[in-house]
Amino acid sequence: MLPDKFRLQIPGPTPIPPRVQQAMNQPMIGHRDPDCSNMVAQLSQRLGPLFGTKEPVLLFASSGTAALEAAVVNTLAPGDEAAVIVSGAFGDRFSKILSRYDITLHQMDVPWGEACQPEQLARFLQKHAQVKAVFLTYCETSTGVLHPIGELAAVIHRETNALVIVDGVSCIGGVESHFDEWGLDILVTGSQKALMLPPGLSFAAVSPRAWQIIEKNPRPRFYLDFQTYRTNIAKETTPFTPAVSLLFGLAEVLAMIEEEGFQQVVERHQLMMRMTRAGIRAMGLTLMTTDTHASPTVTSVMGDDNGSADALRKELRRLSFRVAGGQQHLKGKIFRIGHMGYCDPIDVLTTIATIEVAAKRLELPVQLGAGIQAAEEELIYVSHTRN
Amino acid sequence: MLPDKFRLQIPGPTPIPPRVQQAMNQPMIGHRDPDCSNMVAQLSQRLGPLFGTKEPVLLFASSGTAALEAAVVNTLAPGDEAAVIVSGAFGDRFSKILSRYDITLHQMDVPWGEACQPEQLARFLQKHAQVKAVFLTYCETSTGVLHPIGELAAVIHRETNALVIVDGVSCIGGVESHFDEWGLDILVTGSQKALMLPPGLSFAAVSPRAWQIIEKNPRPRFYLDFQTYRTNIAKETTPFTPAVSLLFGLAEVLAMIEEEGFQQVVERHQLMMRMTRAGIRAMGLTLMTTDTHASPTVTSVMGDDNGSADALRKELRRLSFRVAGGQQHLKGKIFRIGHMGYCDPIDVLTTIATIEVAAKRLELPVQLGAGIQAAEEELIYVSHTRN
Repeated sequence: MLPDKFRLQIPGPTPIPPRVQQAMNQPMIGHRDPDCSNMVAQLSQRLGPLFGTKEPVLLFASSGTAALEAAVVNTLAPGDEAAVIVSGAFGDRFSKILSRYDITLHQMDVPWGEACQPEQLARFLQKHAQVKAVFLTYCETSTGVLHPIGELAAVIHRETNALVIVDGVSCIGGVESHFDEWGLDILVTGSQKALMLPPGLSFAAVSPRAWQIIEKNPRPRFYLDFQTYRTNIAKETTPFTPAVSLLFGLAEVLAMIEEEGFQQVVERHQLMMRMTRAGIRAMGLTLMTTDTHASPTVTSVMGDDNGSADALRKELRRLSFRVAGGQQHLKGKIFRIGHMGYCDPIDVLTTIATIEVAAKRLELPVQLGAGIQAAEEELIYVSHTRN
Repeated sequence: MLPDKFRLQIPGPTPIPPRVQQAMNQPMIGHRDPDCSNMVAQLSQRLGPLFGTKEPVLLFASSGTAALEAAVVNTLAPGDEAAVIVSGAFGDRFSKILSRYDITLHQMDVPWGEACQPEQLARFLQKHAQVKAVFLTYCETSTGVLHPIGELAAVIHRETNALVIVDGVSCIGGVESHFDEWGLDILVTGSQKALMLPPGLSFAAVSPRAWQIIEKNPRPRFYLDFQTYRTNIAKETTPFTPAVSLLFGLAEVLAMIEEEGFQQVVERHQLMMRMTRAGIRAMGLTLMTTDTHASPTVTSVMGDDNGSADALRKELRRLSFRVAGGQQHLKGKIFRIGHMGYCDPIDVLTTIATIEVAAKRLELPVQLGAGIQAAEEELIYVSHTRN
């Protein structure tokens, strides 16, 4: 193996496309320069289809976590009640952020690896109809579950007047999102997942209904104050120095997505999910989530009781192939494969083949070729029927 | 002029050195990868000399403003009193941040373009000795004043028990800083000024004395919680996804500074300041600040009553040469030249020569060659005596 030729198949950060890398090499410009202002205004609009919104998308120089916190501090006043659905490490992060602020928190725990069911959420909210906001995770990065956000949002609107606040960090740009149609109020994401950029940019779409709450919310905030960004976006600029090189890259990412067509991007991610799942399953390894709630961007694989998950992850690393481990109580119990952003079906074949090699080296009961054959069949089927 | 061959001489963002650009093109890595952890731990230590501290420097994925806000929310509890010295737009930004939080604020206004004098600060603090923190600006980017931070810190320690909190955004990396020796408590900076990186990273040094206050401060914060970063730095990692590509760049920036020698970097900035000031003065234009309090990183030039500052800035832009305008009440009244980071004395010659051309085109009373001759003399003198 060439140590420098490593494959990065973790659920973010994801590899940077060469043309995006090249775009980020443009000479630096001033952030108050008209060139920068025009770029910011256009990016804010062009991000809309990825969120499924006609609202301008706000851009922040920060990790995704800051945008999650922004969703909290902009909408909830001290003393407010809120509900959070926790089904993994990132639902838990919302919970941790909420716990720092003086908010009465009602937490609904869903077993990690499962999705929150609409009827289950309805029963929970019937007991807490007074909450001002419900916090959800679209793709739970720590398990690879994609929640049925449209259905869950409908339940929230039926049972409460709460704002629907969604963490879309590890899927927006790779899955469908219908922010306006589903009645979401805040949807945040980060740059380093399906958006194929280095980490350091985050984004939020905000509904008119959320703005009414935000405008009246007395909680102090400055860098993360959505209103300051809205005012500045209207003037085609940013309140603070934006991450200019990442914005150069974002413009190129959006050009790539527009050229491929966003619907095709979404279908590519679904195909990569099917290939990964078929391959893992045929290899005799165990998938963590059901097909119904599997995320098109990340797949979690369960290890056995002898620690095969970590053993596989480490053996893959020796093959210059990088997957992620489990988080919190799943540490050592699963490994996670990212298949999003600058990733295509051929990369998935490589992934499955390399996992077969690693598993065989570890003397796990796999039959060489079984996984890869199943993954190939998914790809052949699509190629025959669509192209 | 080649429109694409523009010179960026604004006080940040500043041009990126080619080898730093190249370093940022390294393939993306996972932020929980050992390679990333090692890098973060080393950067945190290697930044120390630039701040003048033995403490680990904390790194954030954000603009500098977020680090300014972090200094506020980490140290001041609701109801605390604080003092802020405002002598320009960035002192004013500290004031704006402080005003958002429930802090009783005592503001000392210093005329823009002047430095805060130690005895003046002493008199002010004698009236407000109970304040918990005093907020200062090292280089006031909006005017080009470098405050005598060491002397001011000594006054603060003599008159109060307050924390000394300093915005060093537009100078750290280009000027001397003695964080430990001066008894500073928090010193923050950003990546896009003397540190020669794109915007998107910010930094803070924190004193043991400040940590004692921070640990007991009940004010809620999450993304900007210094303690989370300290805990993670001790484990050689970061609490949230760091801006990996900018960290790649930072490692290269520090290598460049270490190769040149930080003392030489500081002297280069002083020379560029002297050349700029000599050139502007000899050209017959008016400098905004006195020699005593001029910043080695940015120089402000006053226009006449007919709007020559903006006219010059626009004429320079036609020459593909970019300087910055004035901010707030100085809008239209000054222009500002950045000379920091990846900038050398030859760039200053180019700057002075181009300003002469622009001024002559505008029929301002300049004698071609006078400014450039004065700037050259500064350079010749240094070359003869030092190299």
